[in-house]
Amino acid sequence: MLFKLLDLAGTFAFAISGAVAARQKKLDLFGIITIAYMVACGGGIMRDLCIGAIPPAGLVDWRYLALSLVASMLAIAVYPVLQRLDHPVQMFDALGLGFFAVFGAHKALAYGHNVQVAIVLGVVSAVGGGAMRDVLLNRTPLILRKEIYASAALLAATLQVSGEQLELPADWLPWFGIVLCFGLRYLAMRYHWNLPRFPRGNG
Amino acid sequence: MLFKLLDLAGTFAFAISGAVAARQKKLDLFGIITIAYMVACGGGIMRDLCIGAIPPAGLVDWRYLALSLVASMLAIAVYPVLQRLDHPVQMFDALGLGFFAVFGAHKALAYGHNVQVAIVLGVVSAVGGGAMRDVLLNRTPLILRKEIYASAALLAATLQVSGEQLELPADWLPWFGIVLCFGLRYLAMRYHWNLPRFPRGNG
Amino acid sequence: MLFKLLDLAGTFAFAISGAVAARQKKLDLFGIITIAYMVACGGGIMRDLCIGAIPPAGLVDWRYLALSLVASMLAIAVYPVLQRLDHPVQMFDALGLGFFAVFGAHKALAYGHNVQVAIVLGVVSAVGGGAMRDVLLNRTPLILRKEIYASAALLAATLQVSGEQLELPADWLPWFGIVLCFGLRYLAMRYHWNLPRFPRGNG
Repeated sequence: MLFKLLDLAGTFAFAISGAVAARQKKLDLFGIITIAYMVACGGGIMRDLCIGAIPPAGLVDWRYLALSLVASMLAIAVYPVLQRLDHPVQMFDALGLGFFAVFGAHKALAYGHNVQVAIVLGVVSAVGGGAMRDVLLNRTPLILRKEIYASAALLAATLQVSGEQLELPADWLPWFGIVLCFGLRYLAMRYHWNLPRFPRGNG
Repeated sequence: MLFKLLDLAGTFAFAISGAVAARQKKLDLFGIITIAYMVACGGGIMRDLCIGAIPPAGLVDWRYLALSLVASMLAIAVYPVLQRLDHPVQMFDALGLGFFAVFGAHKALAYGHNVQVAIVLGVVSAVGGGAMRDVLLNRTPLILRKEIYASAALLAATLQVSGEQLELPADWLPWFGIVLCFGLRYLAMRYHWNLPRFPRGNG
Repeated sequence: MLFKLLDLAGTFAFAISGAVAARQKKLDLFGIITIAYMVACGGGIMRDLCIGAIPPAGLVDWRYLALSLVASMLAIAVYPVLQRLDHPVQMFDALGLGFFAVFGAHKALAYGHNVQVAIVLGVVSAVGGGAMRDVLLNRTPLILRKEIYASAALLAATLQVSGEQLELPADWLPWFGIVLCFGLRYLAMRYHWNLPRFPRGNG
């Protein structure tokens, strides 16, 4: 139950981030809904295609599409409110990030795939939708350029996979990854942590 | 028979729109053929991956590739003629749009998927190739920014899915969606209808 | 054995080309590793999704990820050395191109698909990763704009598929495509051969 709530809260935060970005790029109504839905479900769809979960969950479950529609309506109707709520939305986004990474890794293991597949696809579940948003909005994905974002998802996916290998109890294991991912992401936003980048010209 | 003709006419119109856009962006011979093929088949390939129709029909049927080659040759050899024929090409494109949306939705239902999957994948079949073209040509997809295009496909897919749910007779049901999609698209082009867009700064 | 070596050498060359491009675009550490991995494995993952080889080999085999990590470290630590080694890296890249085209076409045939699927997916295996790199780095893929690159892969895939249709002996057939692809690519680089492009305005 709490898990389902977390899933929907994370999806909603992802959809809002997509709808806001689409509105800023002046897309039309269809474009805003599409980008919102894609951020919310794109990563999970990529994961499901790779593990053979056909059709992808993001297409089957009407709640994801419904949440994307609501997020789009909010981005259209109460944009200034959303901007004022930027901080809570980012908090939900960080929760969703950890949840999707943990759940994605778990689903890949449950389909019988190996440790590496699970970790990579956990990260893909969490950040794939955002990367698709940036590609469609014609910019190099933010997650490849700065911020500790994908790395937090990598941490969560790795913890989940390691825990399942060690057969830690399934009722609290997921929280471990979700909370640490959330904490890392919170600190990275608070103190503007970035991964290292390197000058262009010389080593 | 008429259906197969419609499929090939729509594919050809899609391929021509791809080849012309690729030539305008000064791609080389391989680039023109690739973009033509991708506009013609990209949406259907995405749909087939999501419904588990492996290998995708766009890869298996040599006629799609052949039509893409012919469209590319035309875009190279008789470009000014194509520009003069812009209006008929857009008519075929609108026919193809409706056909692909209806056929894509029908195929998803035939593979046993639910109503939502069928509608979303009907739209993806119809507009996915064009979106891939725009991503490769490094611009935000036109369908997300303006024109009633994807919305016409959405109408066609929804009509088809509703009709199949109501078990309307399969011999004239598809025409319903195709004709209404074509009509909406025609009126949108004729009178420059757009979906609403929203100012960037305030709600 | 020699085949496995060729696979790893090609993968490594592809990963280095990705890591170097990512560093030039000033991506962060995660971005460099992601692009390196994507160039190395992206084309093969697209091929595997289309032929139903789930999960894709590029996700399962830890060596591809490991090579991408090493390539990224090299691009970070000894960038000037890599720039001096540009020529050998391009040689390995040309070898990898031929190998991936031949192997991709062979794998599609081995999964029971037809000749056209095998040729198209052979080319996709060889050039898909590079195209994904360019899309993420926000530029129109180089292979669509200039150089005889995808065409060399097309030659290799076509030779392999024709050879398997004619039941030529499997121990030397692959070398035929690999060597001719390498030779064509070498000559194209040496003498700056390009495919034809066409002026924008008139036919």
